[in-house]
Amino acid sequence: MPKYTVTPWKVEGEVDYNKLIKDFGTEAIDDKLLQRLKKHTKDLHYMLRRKIFFSHRDMNFILDEHEKGNKFYLYTGRGPSGNTHLGHLVPWIFTKWLQDRFDAELWFQMTDDEKFIFNPKLELEETNKLAYENALDVIALGFKKGRTKIFADTDYAKTLYREAIKVAKKLNVSTTKAVFGLTDSDSVGKHFFTSVQSVPAFLPSALAGKNIPCLIPLAIDQDAHFRVTRDIIGKLGYYKPGILHCVFLPALTGPKGKMSASIAESAVYTTDAPEVVAKKIRKYAFSGGGDTIAEHRKKGGNPEIDVSYQWLRFFEEDDKKLEKIYRDYKSGRLLTGELKEILIEKLSRFLKAHQANREKARKVLDKYIIKD
Amino acid sequence: MPKYTVTPWKVEGEVDYNKLIKDFGTEAIDDKLLQRLKKHTKDLHYMLRRKIFFSHRDMNFILDEHEKGNKFYLYTGRGPSGNTHLGHLVPWIFTKWLQDRFDAELWFQMTDDEKFIFNPKLELEETNKLAYENALDVIALGFKKGRTKIFADTDYAKTLYREAIKVAKKLNVSTTKAVFGLTDSDSVGKHFFTSVQSVPAFLPSALAGKNIPCLIPLAIDQDAHFRVTRDIIGKLGYYKPGILHCVFLPALTGPKGKMSASIAESAVYTTDAPEVVAKKIRKYAFSGGGDTIAEHRKKGGNPEIDVSYQWLRFFEEDDKKLEKIYRDYKSGRLLTGELKEILIEKLSRFLKAHQANREKARKVLDKYIIKD
Repeated sequence: MPKYTVTPWKVEGEVDYNKLIKDFGTEAIDDKLLQRLKKHTKDLHYMLRRKIFFSHRDMNFILDEHEKGNKFYLYTGRGPSGNTHLGHLVPWIFTKWLQDRFDAELWFQMTDDEKFIFNPKLELEETNKLAYENALDVIALGFKKGRTKIFADTDYAKTLYREAIKVAKKLNVSTTKAVFGLTDSDSVGKHFFTSVQSVPAFLPSALAGKNIPCLIPLAIDQDAHFRVTRDIIGKLGYYKPGILHCVFLPALTGPKGKMSASIAESAVYTTDAPEVVAKKIRKYAFSGGGDTIAEHRKKGGNPEIDVSYQWLRFFEEDDKKLEKIYRDYKSGRLLTGELKEILIEKLSRFLKAHQANREKARKVLDKYIIKD
Repeated sequence: MPKYTVTPWKVEGEVDYNKLIKDFGTEAIDDKLLQRLKKHTKDLHYMLRRKIFFSHRDMNFILDEHEKGNKFYLYTGRGPSGNTHLGHLVPWIFTKWLQDRFDAELWFQMTDDEKFIFNPKLELEETNKLAYENALDVIALGFKKGRTKIFADTDYAKTLYREAIKVAKKLNVSTTKAVFGLTDSDSVGKHFFTSVQSVPAFLPSALAGKNIPCLIPLAIDQDAHFRVTRDIIGKLGYYKPGILHCVFLPALTGPKGKMSASIAESAVYTTDAPEVVAKKIRKYAFSGGGDTIAEHRKKGGNPEIDVSYQWLRFFEEDDKKLEKIYRDYKSGRLLTGELKEILIEKLSRFLKAHQANREKARKVLDKYIIKD
C-alpha cells in the first residue's frame, strides 16, 4: 500500500516523487533534456536547476516541433475554491518564464465549474467570483497582455461545451472510476468534469483548424486529467499535449503532502499582510532544528524537512544565497528562528511587490479575460 | 418480464400504456381533469378526446397556479438525429393548441449534443445542422413569433451549462444507471446528458428570479428524464414541472413500438413528396383487414391494429368522419386498400400545406432561434 495519495482532489502523506514517475508512467527531466532546452532558453530557470520541475511527458516532441517552426502554446489553470496561496504561484512563476523565453501564448483555465461541482459547500456564484480574484494573481506575475487568455469555464462555456462533449463521448465511466477513484455514488458532474479540463489542450488547434502543440506546466497531482486527455485527444486527431510536472510546495505545518487553501494555518495567501505572514511563519513553520539551541549548535538542523528552508528553495532565485543558508543551517550556525526571519524577509519583499501588481491588475483584467 | 421496452432511446414491443402509468408512477388523464381543463380552453383537443394524451404529472398543480394568476410556460423538444417524421409532430400539434388556448410561451430544445453523444455515427456538425432543419417543422405548425424560443443546445451552451451543472452536482451515477439502464461502459457524456435536458424545466424561472410553472407535453418515452429532473429541481428551489404524456404514433410497418426515423420504410417524413407518401402507405402500411376481399367483407377488419386507421386517429380532427371510417372498416364495408387511400388523401393535403409553411419558415427562422 502506498504511504501517500496523489489525485487531483487529494494529496496526503510523504510523497515519493521518483515512485510517482514510475506509477504515473512519466519521464524524469534529465540533464540531456535540460541541455536541449537550454539551447533555446539560454539559461535554466531555478525551478529546473533544483528539480522542482522534475518530470515530463513528450517534452522532446514539443521541442522537435518547435525546432521545425511549429511553435507551442502554454496551458495551465486554477481551481478557484479560495484565495490564491503561494503553492499555486509555483507553476505559474515557471510558466511565466516559459512564456518569456519562447514568446508562447498562454491559455489559462479557471475551473469555477469544477470547484462548484466537487465542493458541497460552494455555490457557483462564489467560485465564479473567485475565478476573477485569482486571475489578478496570474496577471500580477507579469504575463504578457495580448499573449495571455484567461477564462472562467462557465463564462466560456459555449466554446468549451461543444468541444468537451467530443471528449465526453469517448470517455467511459469505467475509466473515470479507474483513473480518479470515482464511484457510482459520485455525481455525473464529477465524472463529466475531466472532459472540460481536457478542452484547452486542443482548443487552439480546433479553432485554428490545424495542429498546434500544447505544453502544460502543472503540479503533478493534476496529471491524472491529462493521462485521460492524452488518450482521447489523439483519437480526435490532435497532438497529445506535452506536460512538465512540478513537486508540491509543502504546507507550512509540515513537509508532508501539499499546501491546502482550505486549512488556513497551512498556507500563506498572496493577499496576507506582512505582519500576518511573519506571524504565520513564526508560529507554524515546521522546524528541522534541534530541540534546544545547544543541541542545534552541536548536531545542526535538517534542511530537508525544515519548511522555511524548503520554501526558500521555491522562492529564493539566487543559488549561492540558498547554498549558504543550507550549509549554515545544516552545520548549526543558523538557528531555526533566524532561518524563519530570512524567509519572512524574502516573502515580505516578494508579496509587497505582488500585492501592488495585483491591484494594478484590476485595471487591465478585461484585457486578459476571454468570454463567449 | 415486460414484453416491451420504453426508454428515451428505445421503444420496442407492444406497449401497455395502462401498465406504463403504474410503472412510471404517473396519473391517468381522467374526465374530471378534462372538464377542469375545458373550463379554461372552452374546447378539448381531439388528442385529449381520443386519449392520445393519456397520462400526466401534476397537471392539477399547473391549473391551480394558473387560476391564481401564475401562468405556466410550455417546454418540449426534439433530438435532431434525422429528418422530422409524422410521429414527432404529434406532441407538437398538441403543444401548439396549448399555446393558443393559454397564450403560453414555448421553450423548444433541440438536443444536438444528445444525438451526437448517443449516436456513434453522427458528428456534432450534422446534428447541429439537423436542429435548424427540424426547427422549420416546428415553426411550420404555426407557433407564435415572439412567444416561441427554439434553441440548439450547443449554440445556447453558455446559458444552459451554468444551470446544467447545478443538476449534475446532485445527480449520481447510481441514479443514471437505475433510471436509464446506463452502465460503466457508457460514456460520461451519456450519464451527464439528462442534466442538460433538465434545464429548460426551470431556466425561465432562474432567469426571471421567480418561480414560473412549467408544463411539458411529450411522448411518454421521454418521461424518465423528467422523473430525474423533478426530484432534483425541487431541491434547487424550483417548482416541479407538470407533464402531459402522449402515446406513440405506430410505425407504418406494424402497430408495435414507435415510428423510428432511422428505419426509412417505417416512417413518413415531413419532406416526403406526395407520391412517396402514397407509395409508402400502399406498400408498407400494416393491414388489419382480412386475407381475402371475401373474408374481409364477411368478418370485417380490425381497426385496432390497422395502421392506416390508427394514423387517422392522430391526424383526422373530425370525430364523425373518423367514427364512420371505424364502423365501415370494422363491418367490412371499407376495404384496407380504400382505407389507405383515405389516409393518403388526408396526409397529402396536410403535408402539402406543411411543406409550404416549412419553406416560408426559412425566412423567419431567426425570429424564433435564441443563441448565446
